[in-house]
Amino acid sequence: MQLLVVNPNTTASMTATIASAATMAAASATQIIAATSSMGPVSIEGYYDEAFALPGLLMEIARQERAGVDAAVIACFDDTGLDAARAMASIPVIGICEAALATAGFIAKRFTVVTTMERSRVPIEELVHRYGMVGRAKVRAANISVLSLEDPNSGARDRLRNEIVKAIEQDNAEAIVLGCAGMADLAKTLQREFGMPVIDGVGAAVKQAEALVALGLSTSKRGSYASPVVKPYTGAMRDFAPQLLTA
Amino acid sequence: MQLLVVNPNTTASMTATIASAATMAAASATQIIAATSSMGPVSIEGYYDEAFALPGLLMEIARQERAGVDAAVIACFDDTGLDAARAMASIPVIGICEAALATAGFIAKRFTVVTTMERSRVPIEELVHRYGMVGRAKVRAANISVLSLEDPNSGARDRLRNEIVKAIEQDNAEAIVLGCAGMADLAKTLQREFGMPVIDGVGAAVKQAEALVALGLSTSKRGSYASPVVKPYTGAMRDFAPQLLTA
Amino acid sequence: MQLLVVNPNTTASMTATIASAATMAAASATQIIAATSSMGPVSIEGYYDEAFALPGLLMEIARQERAGVDAAVIACFDDTGLDAARAMASIPVIGICEAALATAGFIAKRFTVVTTMERSRVPIEELVHRYGMVGRAKVRAANISVLSLEDPNSGARDRLRNEIVKAIEQDNAEAIVLGCAGMADLAKTLQREFGMPVIDGVGAAVKQAEALVALGLSTSKRGSYASPVVKPYTGAMRDFAPQLLTA
Amino acid sequence: MQLLVVNPNTTASMTATIASAATMAAASATQIIAATSSMGPVSIEGYYDEAFALPGLLMEIARQERAGVDAAVIACFDDTGLDAARAMASIPVIGICEAALATAGFIAKRFTVVTTMERSRVPIEELVHRYGMVGRAKVRAANISVLSLEDPNSGARDRLRNEIVKAIEQDNAEAIVLGCAGMADLAKTLQREFGMPVIDGVGAAVKQAEALVALGLSTSKRGSYASPVVKPYTGAMRDFAPQLLTA
Amino acid sequence: MQLLVVNPNTTASMTATIASAATMAAASATQIIAATSSMGPVSIEGYYDEAFALPGLLMEIARQERAGVDAAVIACFDDTGLDAARAMASIPVIGICEAALATAGFIAKRFTVVTTMERSRVPIEELVHRYGMVGRAKVRAANISVLSLEDPNSGARDRLRNEIVKAIEQDNAEAIVLGCAGMADLAKTLQREFGMPVIDGVGAAVKQAEALVALGLSTSKRGSYASPVVKPYTGAMRDFAPQLLTA
Amino acid sequence: MQLLVVNPNTTASMTATIASAATMAAASATQIIAATSSMGPVSIEGYYDEAFALPGLLMEIARQERAGVDAAVIACFDDTGLDAARAMASIPVIGICEAALATAGFIAKRFTVVTTMERSRVPIEELVHRYGMVGRAKVRAANISVLSLEDPNSGARDRLRNEIVKAIEQDNAEAIVLGCAGMADLAKTLQREFGMPVIDGVGAAVKQAEALVALGLSTSKRGSYASPVVKPYTGAMRDFAPQLLTA
Repeated sequence: MQLLVVNPNTTASMTATIASAATMAAASATQIIAATSSMGPVSIEGYYDEAFALPGLLMEIARQERAGVDAAVIACFDDTGLDAARAMASIPVIGICEAALATAGFIAKRFTVVTTMERSRVPIEELVHRYGMVGRAKVRAANISVLSLEDPNSGARDRLRNEIVKAIEQDNAEAIVLGCAGMADLAKTLQREFGMPVIDGVGAAVKQAEALVALGLSTSKRGSYASPVVKPYTGAMRDFAPQLLTA
Repeated sequence: MQLLVVNPNTTASMTATIASAATMAAASATQIIAATSSMGPVSIEGYYDEAFALPGLLMEIARQERAGVDAAVIACFDDTGLDAARAMASIPVIGICEAALATAGFIAKRFTVVTTMERSRVPIEELVHRYGMVGRAKVRAANISVLSLEDPNSGARDRLRNEIVKAIEQDNAEAIVLGCAGMADLAKTLQREFGMPVIDGVGAAVKQAEALVALGLSTSKRGSYASPVVKPYTGAMRDFAPQLLTA
Repeated sequence: MQLLVVNPNTTASMTATIASAATMAAASATQIIAATSSMGPVSIEGYYDEAFALPGLLMEIARQERAGVDAAVIACFDDTGLDAARAMASIPVIGICEAALATAGFIAKRFTVVTTMERSRVPIEELVHRYGMVGRAKVRAANISVLSLEDPNSGARDRLRNEIVKAIEQDNAEAIVLGCAGMADLAKTLQREFGMPVIDGVGAAVKQAEALVALGLSTSKRGSYASPVVKPYTGAMRDFAPQLLTA
Repeated sequence: MQLLVVNPNTTASMTATIASAATMAAASATQIIAATSSMGPVSIEGYYDEAFALPGLLMEIARQERAGVDAAVIACFDDTGLDAARAMASIPVIGICEAALATAGFIAKRFTVVTTMERSRVPIEELVHRYGMVGRAKVRAANISVLSLEDPNSGARDRLRNEIVKAIEQDNAEAIVLGCAGMADLAKTLQREFGMPVIDGVGAAVKQAEALVALGLSTSKRGSYASPVVKPYTGAMRDFAPQLLTA
Repeated sequence: MQLLVVNPNTTASMTATIASAATMAAASATQIIAATSSMGPVSIEGYYDEAFALPGLLMEIARQERAGVDAAVIACFDDTGLDAARAMASIPVIGICEAALATAGFIAKRFTVVTTMERSRVPIEELVHRYGMVGRAKVRAANISVLSLEDPNSGARDRLRNEIVKAIEQDNAEAIVLGCAGMADLAKTLQREFGMPVIDGVGAAVKQAEALVALGLSTSKRGSYASPVVKPYTGAMRDFAPQLLTA
Repeated sequence: MQLLVVNPNTTASMTATIASAATMAAASATQIIAATSSMGPVSIEGYYDEAFALPGLLMEIARQERAGVDAAVIACFDDTGLDAARAMASIPVIGICEAALATAGFIAKRFTVVTTMERSRVPIEELVHRYGMVGRAKVRAANISVLSLEDPNSGARDRLRNEIVKAIEQDNAEAIVLGCAGMADLAKTLQREFGMPVIDGVGAAVKQAEALVALGLSTSKRGSYASPVVKPYTGAMRDFAPQLLTA
């Protein structure tokens, strides 16, 4: 099977980290196609960035679906555009936050998500709510920018470690979820270091996408995710959206 | 005060209906500036349409904020782009769903939202959840398209009436909330006809926006709605998003 | 329009503070009629005081409705007697807690209510629950009595400030709600001082009452708030209650 | 022990029914003191009636506490004045709704409360919420007035039976809770007739009051139910409230 | 009446403590039959121990029901096997956690459960959820083993006291619930010492069982607790389970 | 990898159905080891049966873990013994209900579980609650016994189909979850027949178990699932439980 992993953050070096984590998690029969969205912010930090990441993200998924991929993973912990992508596509689409939370729920009763910036904390708490994990999952921000994770001298990883220590001591966390696609390469190391499960959403989402394909399941087209009604689009969006449905 | 009412559905005739409802609700000292988003779907029906409505909507709010409006109302019952707009703007921004639900909560314990299409029912149920109205508000779809509301011969208004009857009989609804900006002109008539409160979100949002301005309140810039970090944007989004912050 | 603002705390000096805040918030076309309830405790601090504040409060609202006011605000943060007043009256009735929480919800995702005494904390937490703000609003008590707020030498305002500091540091509050009608004069000063939104319920409720009147909406008389059944009353209540309905 | 059962509905014939049910449930060592409140509406149907029932109810509990009763039951299914009574009194106070719901929870997973009038349905749903029974307890109204239960020719009992049938068929109810103190004499008959548990709140509350006394437990005076602050009262309330605390 | 109090922890000395607390709480007409389960772990600490306590517990209840007891109390704070016992038996069955939480709810708005080991904290939080006490009850572990409570030199009681102090200071607890059957003898002493209600589940459950019997109520046999279908059992369970139903 | 799929229903023919579904879902590198528990009821229908299924189930998992399996699936839709197994084992353990609900959540917003007997409906609703799917998942019972599913002439499959039709028409279900391990062979057929996703928990759990192993994740041993304390066991349980930990 071919599995698209799209990075809606338009930073190719970040996509490389994601691709590597996806490949490590993937079954040998799965071909990972890692793609960087071609339109939008270089990193998604908060609600505003999310909005401008959507058209590029959806175009990439539409393009790759036409090219034959079997499923798609959206590699941003805000699960940016997940509902829109599910409505648009026929193939299954998985968000890395939902996959990480579901996976954590299979191995721990209580766990803590450690994300990057304070402004991303509440959006992730809203996802915790949406995915039914209130009372089980706490969210902490390490106060690091997304792209600083790529710089070994930024101190970002130390701040992440400090926040994990607080999660253990103050939240009685039984497992840690890494709350940013840019942390995907750290899960194994931190798991060894802290002696407790550390979950990366990219790997978790790859497995969920593989599972749906193997089980012959895809997004229901009844109700909430019914295929979009074909209709005129105005302005620049004419170049983006309509082609998704008409090509 | 100047109050922007943006229609993220890119259909000017629908904006006229909205503008009229907004003007009727507004205080005499309020100048309503009704605008149609210049990019995106002609009508927003479901998650997918919402995604492509965002850049145009946000650009319009940014443009009008620079031009001096005091507050903005997003005239789509999905509260499309509300969080992104709040993070972006310094002026208060109100969604018509949140305003309608809050208003209904001041005059009834239990009420029913009647929206257009089945695919919009669950998204509105999610807003009911988000705004703390679970157990108080039910959502029904009359199975009419957004734009059919403009055509008196479409039968759309009769289907809407039928659904209100069901809300009264089956839900014991104490009030009705009209779940689409395109129904804004019907509230008064239906209220008279059914002898119970019927709430239109456009009018409700106008009053909330006026209230915030009068009280000297605007969106908090601590935490969730902190102003976006200025950063590079890729592709076509370079033409849209960055100017919002740098202009 | 004429807007009644009733203080169910039977302390006239407190009503003066409330009246001033209401007038500052009101539209120029709104005439504020501030009234002190003529029966009940001088201040409402906890469930017991609330009970004895009800007859006087309801009598005042009934009397003023007959005199022609267009809407009423109950100026006590416990939203004392709100449901009873809504069932009794035909005009809209707004509580200052519900108005403050709804208003806070339009400008912040997470916020903290700072109230007076510890015994009022849980009752307000119950209102937070009722109004659907669990997970968004925290409640803190500054451990000051209601009437001490009127005495500049009581240290009450310093304790209030200290509690706001804790709300910012420990709760990551994005906005502050003042949890007592007696704090109505402090909102603007504290907002300036702390550089974040500070919401007073009296002003917020005035705007909600104006909004309902402008929109032609009033309490639904179907279901929960159906007009009371006319029936005999026993004892001293014969002098109070029945006249409300029969006069 | 002496157990006060107060009827806040000021109808003596209704108190007789309640007294009889209380006596049947009481242990042989318990002396039931049934009292009718001396001030307020003849029957409590909705929020408005509740408000005017409070002073009389609280005065009766205060008077009887001074006279030496060991505990009090408030015999109205709205749990009228329960929080105020708990704050006021040193003896335990039990509401019949809370006792009935807790008792039902010990013998059934899912159950239905059948109450009198539609206007009482939502207030009881709010108690279901407060007592943590959402998802377990449904509430139905038989559309009968409280006092019609006393008239064998009113058809009230047949309507009650019809509603129980609906609870069984439509709600899959495993037990029935009678949602009005005036139904207290019907529990045993209906239990036999329907072959499933039927719970009357008066009997249930008597047992809870006995239990607390036997266990040496009473209302906590820390926090929410701290004893009222002694303070001046204005108007007619001067004759009622203050004596409760100073006598 | 005869009331069975089963200790599913197979430690007879612990049963003695439980029996003593049960007897102190029981009415004079109630004969307490304290029994130690004959199969299973000496103490129940976590999910795994619970599983192996079930057959012995259920056999004992079945045996005693045949011998004529009128009701049963399961004396383990995890409410081990409560649902299975209710489905099996015709007599009422009460768990000490559910009884303690319901009792606490009648005398306090907010309270804290103090249990033994950290691994029991989350299971009790799940019961708090199940019994509708989320937001009212917190759970703390004193980090003591169940059986160490019996050893006056173990320091267990001091750690319990320390945790109660934290509950008062950090949780604003209005009452304390002892979260282990092995603490049943400490309630009175701690209540005196801390000057606030301290609730032991064994005593609380005895009163609930007496209440149900006095009210003529027992577990509903419609729906969730319908009597088990008689069916073949395999292996060693043949010796245990089937006899319960066929004897 | 070796994946144990245990059937806690002690009916070998049912295990064959389960094994076949597991094998079809498994990756080619996964060896399915299907086992029938050697102690307990032939079918699990309700809380009572569950209790007696636990020792046999846990012994089988312990035995197979010692023999080297990499993960375990508990093939009963009540997720019988899941918490105990997780505490006991070092390998990951997955329940078929939790896996099915999580999987459904990735492809539908709203869905309905169709189970066998009415007495299993509420237990599954409790799992829906536990797994955070309240408001998204409904539960229906087709009123068929577990073992009747194996008999093509029992009419069981027709009743299942009828219930699916009701789920579509009355619940607006977007997907169907089969609520019994004995239905595992029907998913593909029903999916084709109804043209919407139909999810079998056995296949779903196999994929989750494979995912955890591939990701190097297993149950956290901090907190809720800490390894059981080694301790004496009494009676017949001495032969079962202790060996799990000491062998």
